[in-house]
Amino acid sequence: MEFDHLFTEQLDALKDEGNYRIFADLERRCGAFPRAKNHGSGEEVTVWCSNDYLGMGQNETVLAAMKHTLETCGAGAGGTRNISGTNHHHTLLEAELADLHGKEAALIFTSGYVSNWAALSTLGGRLPNAVILSDALNHASMIEGIRHSRADKRIWAHNDVEDLDRKLSELPEDATKIVAFESVYSMDGDIAPMEEICDVAEKHGAMTYLDEVHAVGLYGPRGGGVAEERGLMDRITLIEGTLGKAFGVMGGYITGSAPLVDFVRSFASGFIFTTALPPAVAAGATASIRHLKQSREERAQQARNVAEVRRRLDAIGIPHLPNPSHIIPVMVKDPVKCRMLSDILMEDWGIYVQPINYPTVPKGTERLRITPSPLHTAADIDHLVNALHSLWSQCALARAVA
Amino acid sequence: MEFDHLFTEQLDALKDEGNYRIFADLERRCGAFPRAKNHGSGEEVTVWCSNDYLGMGQNETVLAAMKHTLETCGAGAGGTRNISGTNHHHTLLEAELADLHGKEAALIFTSGYVSNWAALSTLGGRLPNAVILSDALNHASMIEGIRHSRADKRIWAHNDVEDLDRKLSELPEDATKIVAFESVYSMDGDIAPMEEICDVAEKHGAMTYLDEVHAVGLYGPRGGGVAEERGLMDRITLIEGTLGKAFGVMGGYITGSAPLVDFVRSFASGFIFTTALPPAVAAGATASIRHLKQSREERAQQARNVAEVRRRLDAIGIPHLPNPSHIIPVMVKDPVKCRMLSDILMEDWGIYVQPINYPTVPKGTERLRITPSPLHTAADIDHLVNALHSLWSQCALARAVA
Ligand SMILES: Cc1ncc(COP(=O)(O)O)c(C=O)c1O
Ligand SMILES: Cc1ncc(COP(=O)(O)O)c(C=O)c1O
Repeated sequence: MEFDHLFTEQLDALKDEGNYRIFADLERRCGAFPRAKNHGSGEEVTVWCSNDYLGMGQNETVLAAMKHTLETCGAGAGGTRNISGTNHHHTLLEAELADLHGKEAALIFTSGYVSNWAALSTLGGRLPNAVILSDALNHASMIEGIRHSRADKRIWAHNDVEDLDRKLSELPEDATKIVAFESVYSMDGDIAPMEEICDVAEKHGAMTYLDEVHAVGLYGPRGGGVAEERGLMDRITLIEGTLGKAFGVMGGYITGSAPLVDFVRSFASGFIFTTALPPAVAAGATASIRHLKQSREERAQQARNVAEVRRRLDAIGIPHLPNPSHIIPVMVKDPVKCRMLSDILMEDWGIYVQPINYPTVPKGTERLRITPSPLHTAADIDHLVNALHSLWSQCALARAVA
Repeated sequence: MEFDHLFTEQLDALKDEGNYRIFADLERRCGAFPRAKNHGSGEEVTVWCSNDYLGMGQNETVLAAMKHTLETCGAGAGGTRNISGTNHHHTLLEAELADLHGKEAALIFTSGYVSNWAALSTLGGRLPNAVILSDALNHASMIEGIRHSRADKRIWAHNDVEDLDRKLSELPEDATKIVAFESVYSMDGDIAPMEEICDVAEKHGAMTYLDEVHAVGLYGPRGGGVAEERGLMDRITLIEGTLGKAFGVMGGYITGSAPLVDFVRSFASGFIFTTALPPAVAAGATASIRHLKQSREERAQQARNVAEVRRRLDAIGIPHLPNPSHIIPVMVKDPVKCRMLSDILMEDWGIYVQPINYPTVPKGTERLRITPSPLHTAADIDHLVNALHSLWSQCALARAVA
């Protein structure tokens, strides 16, 4: 209490800007996704902003694997990976992930955030004369990992291969160069020019570090991500991903050569000093990856729904960022209006799309980020489009010129 | 491959020192804890080094809550806490934790590691003129959080209240002082002089940040930790804990005043930019906390087993660090011997005690860290003591003088 004024001052500033966050208290309804109960109002809502992109969180094989593993191995891992916490389900998951990305080895972490943070801080911190070349729009987890490494760093303009080339040329011969970037950028939904990045990196003898968090499970014939789709997996030194988005569970990982993975395993504080993932979580993730390696139905239906939502938004002149991915950012560009739109959608229409504000996106680029899943029906799409149409008319927000 | 020599060089150095880690590939047998299958040998082993201290990982109420929540809410949370990932089970867990520690509010993280790292880096990084006073033996997650905050820091001698007092006196009036320490130190098993630390902190107007990771569920009438046992919870500004050790599941948390918790919730990168815990994990943790608030049987039987193992080790002159906790460190003081002892225990006796080496403990203090649980039987204890007795004789390691 004595110290509370220190906290409230900064919180008040957030509130004044319209950037104070209020979490929707939901209860997702397994078997009825994308439906959830909103514990605020007690009403049922349709979720349009989940990162369980394919609805794998209710996939029966995934749930069966998790229940079975709960029964056979118990709730938690019971230790760090080194001290009694490695469970055979971790070993199986790591083998599955190495195979998914065509790499020698894989290592799992408690989250995608921790995998980026721990891997980048270890590589940047321990490799001789490391310099990390980081795309300007890289995710917070990469930025914090780079910062934590205290390695020299250069930020290159987003997706700008020429700028990357220039910045690489300026570095000394003996630097260990690491080019860090994402495939699908989660807030704008654009995709990196991966082949050109590989060309430039190879020209300069740089390693490539690729975050495929918003692509694994979703792109490529086996869900190996954009690098798989484009036939580039073997040109990427390290591929990082999550088990918590398209795979529908939780956890993160890296894949790469056996020595690279062993290096991170042996030196990364964020890997070593923490309780391992519950065996049931690992088993669920393995089941999900296996399912999406074979089944393309979820990806195909998602693509159809994404195209349909885009087409319908265009038809009524609702502005959204064009991009080649599954993410539809409807730009509002004001935190207060964005929150207001989201509130009305929830209260009047039973539609949940969280307003995305600072620090997730730069101030002035606030948006509603819509993520159609294969589970949304034609009626769901109609309802969403009608709601947005009505709101856009009422609020007289600028429409895209037809 | 091109870069592999960079990794192998440092790995070879680790191997030369005897500090290269090999994980035991286990499959814990739910319902038969502390038994597990060792996938290396295919044989059954008895685990003597788990941090599932009370065996809650196989508690039936915990498992039932998890299975039920899997069925009703699905596998993962489906988003970050802000973007569709808050599930009602998170809200319930946070209320349970606030109650456990007698605080206004609580906030959960993906792990105890992340809770320390995120909370300390946010407090240290954002509070005006912050200075963190860190106990010399604080856990890696606290050290990394402090380092990441880039706040001014002072390291005080382990558990040395006079040194803390001195270091606090040297700080300017207007510094925001944060005293960071643990209750039970996990590798030595000693406990902080918490009341004296509170006295000194209050004298200097400093906040107190307490890691109760190895104490929650285990100490205090309701399992609220050492601060509960000693009636000091209201004198600690922030109490941090884990859901992955005595509570048997996974995740971490902080508790404190509502503004403090809201501050970390609103600003901590490691909280904001990551997928939330699976609802089933949250529900399992809630069930575990509730169980251990009421039932003292697990703690009582654990205490009896710990006392018995100590008594028996003393009787045969096996050196272990004296301490008032549930952790029994048997000192070996050499990484190669420590690994050898552990290997023989596993291969010849079916006993699994992981060797603890650098960087988990300082070089030269390598040990076998034994954690008796309430589930170990009298026969298990006999078997362990016989094995150690035989090994100590064979290896002619220095025995404690009687
Ligand atoms: C690009 C990117 N990388 C990493 C992460 C972290 O992954 P996780 O949610 O598994 O922590 C996220 C989102 O949360 C992300 O958007
Ligand atoms: C003192 C201490 N704090 C924090 C942690 C991290 O907790 P978790 O395992 O939940 O990440 C650990 C051990 O892992 C620990 O020993």
